[in-house]
Amino acid sequence: MGRKLIGILMEEVEIVRIMEDQVLNGPKYFYRNISVDSVIFGYHERELKVLLQRPQNFIKWTLPGGYVLKTESVDNAALRTVRYRTKLDNLFLHQFKVFGEPNRVKDDTFTPEAYGKIIGAKIENDHWMFENFVSIAYFALTEYSLVQPTGASYVEECCWFDINNLPGLIYDHSDIIKEALKALKLFIHQHPIGYELLPDKFTLPEIHSLYETILDKKIDIRNFAKKLTSIGLITKLEEQRNIGAHRSPYLYMFDKDKYDQLIRDEEIIVI
Amino acid sequence: MGRKLIGILMEEVEIVRIMEDQVLNGPKYFYRNISVDSVIFGYHERELKVLLQRPQNFIKWTLPGGYVLKTESVDNAALRTVRYRTKLDNLFLHQFKVFGEPNRVKDDTFTPEAYGKIIGAKIENDHWMFENFVSIAYFALTEYSLVQPTGASYVEECCWFDINNLPGLIYDHSDIIKEALKALKLFIHQHPIGYELLPDKFTLPEIHSLYETILDKKIDIRNFAKKLTSIGLITKLEEQRNIGAHRSPYLYMFDKDKYDQLIRDEEIIVI
Repeated sequence: MGRKLIGILMEEVEIVRIMEDQVLNGPKYFYRNISVDSVIFGYHERELKVLLQRPQNFIKWTLPGGYVLKTESVDNAALRTVRYRTKLDNLFLHQFKVFGEPNRVKDDTFTPEAYGKIIGAKIENDHWMFENFVSIAYFALTEYSLVQPTGASYVEECCWFDINNLPGLIYDHSDIIKEALKALKLFIHQHPIGYELLPDKFTLPEIHSLYETILDKKIDIRNFAKKLTSIGLITKLEEQRNIGAHRSPYLYMFDKDKYDQLIRDEEIIVI
Repeated sequence: MGRKLIGILMEEVEIVRIMEDQVLNGPKYFYRNISVDSVIFGYHERELKVLLQRPQNFIKWTLPGGYVLKTESVDNAALRTVRYRTKLDNLFLHQFKVFGEPNRVKDDTFTPEAYGKIIGAKIENDHWMFENFVSIAYFALTEYSLVQPTGASYVEECCWFDINNLPGLIYDHSDIIKEALKALKLFIHQHPIGYELLPDKFTLPEIHSLYETILDKKIDIRNFAKKLTSIGLITKLEEQRNIGAHRSPYLYMFDKDKYDQLIRDEEIIVI
């Protein structure tokens, strides 16, 4: 969807009004049977995390997501639901896959009866919220130490989990995360990353760690440096960082023009 | 969706029965507001084509596509609609993008009034077929000389068009083709191609042409050969093809084990 917000984000007050009404009249506002789910990856110092939420009275955790208003684009629905429930804004969300198996949203811990108890009303078995949903999935990559996720409305908890230590997830959400991770690994061969994740001036080990963490494999640091500098993505500065006796690694910067050109061209970047 | 058919394809007779009923009762069988569209690329001797269809009484052409039955997966709907309308079977369809702008399906040449005339009934402006559709798009790559596309049911014409010379297309279908071509170019860096497109034994210029045609750029043939042989994807045979005086190029074959492994691993293949 490119690197800017698409469409006009709705006012919070309007969203709350709609949400109160949605259990009864959802299909008036939203496409029936279509949902969006977002896998937000957070990187910080050699760790990759995923943002999850647990709605009120839920036992299992879910990805941030929701329904698509008939008046907005699907991309906008992903942005809106991430922003609304997590307070994250300006994320670069990438649509990567559709999850469309029949009966993918069945779960013993979240039934019409259980949901009825939560909201204090009788929910019929054929209620629209319990029909099957075709989910359009997005991923994003962000600097997780900059983010303070907070639940909103009916979300009780919202926090980061280590990618290798996830809690119990609803429906096929663990598959969605697994596929998002595969998509992220392919993505970094097609797009430069790091501009939002690293400081303005960074050392070679810092950018090298970022790639090793995401690709989850060892990368030869000399070839890595040679490749990134030879395509012009990063430039070595005269400046060094003094981090101790005999340890003053050179600093590097992104060439932002080249960075943006690589985003536009979608040329393959080989690491 | 991998390299095999998913789910059980419906019997033709069942599909026809449903199609007769769908104008009136579509939302009983299909998800409302969800469609699939497939961009079938045909390769043959340095030419890349796209398969298009023109439904009965339509002025513009469309991609092969249709609706998703509530009892099937979205992937299966794509296979079914391609098979049903084009007689193409066993295609490896790759889901690549969702087209979900509001009002994307408006077109002056295809209105409820015009459609009513075609089927001889009054179609109201708020008929479900004229609501907006979120389209889940797929692409496939096939050997086009092996295929005899034939229209079925309400499809009047179905044929191949040169990628650089497309007819008038409905809705955002020309955008969908443009995005599919971008996805195909990225795809061939992530997956080996050619097994279904080239003869068992082929010359270097033959596989080189395939890559040049799809990537739409010149590729140095010596580096290309070195790369494909060094990763073990193709093997040079002792055998030569005799195509004239002083012209007997060596033949090559795919290493099918390596080919399948590269498909599984989704490692980057750099050309």
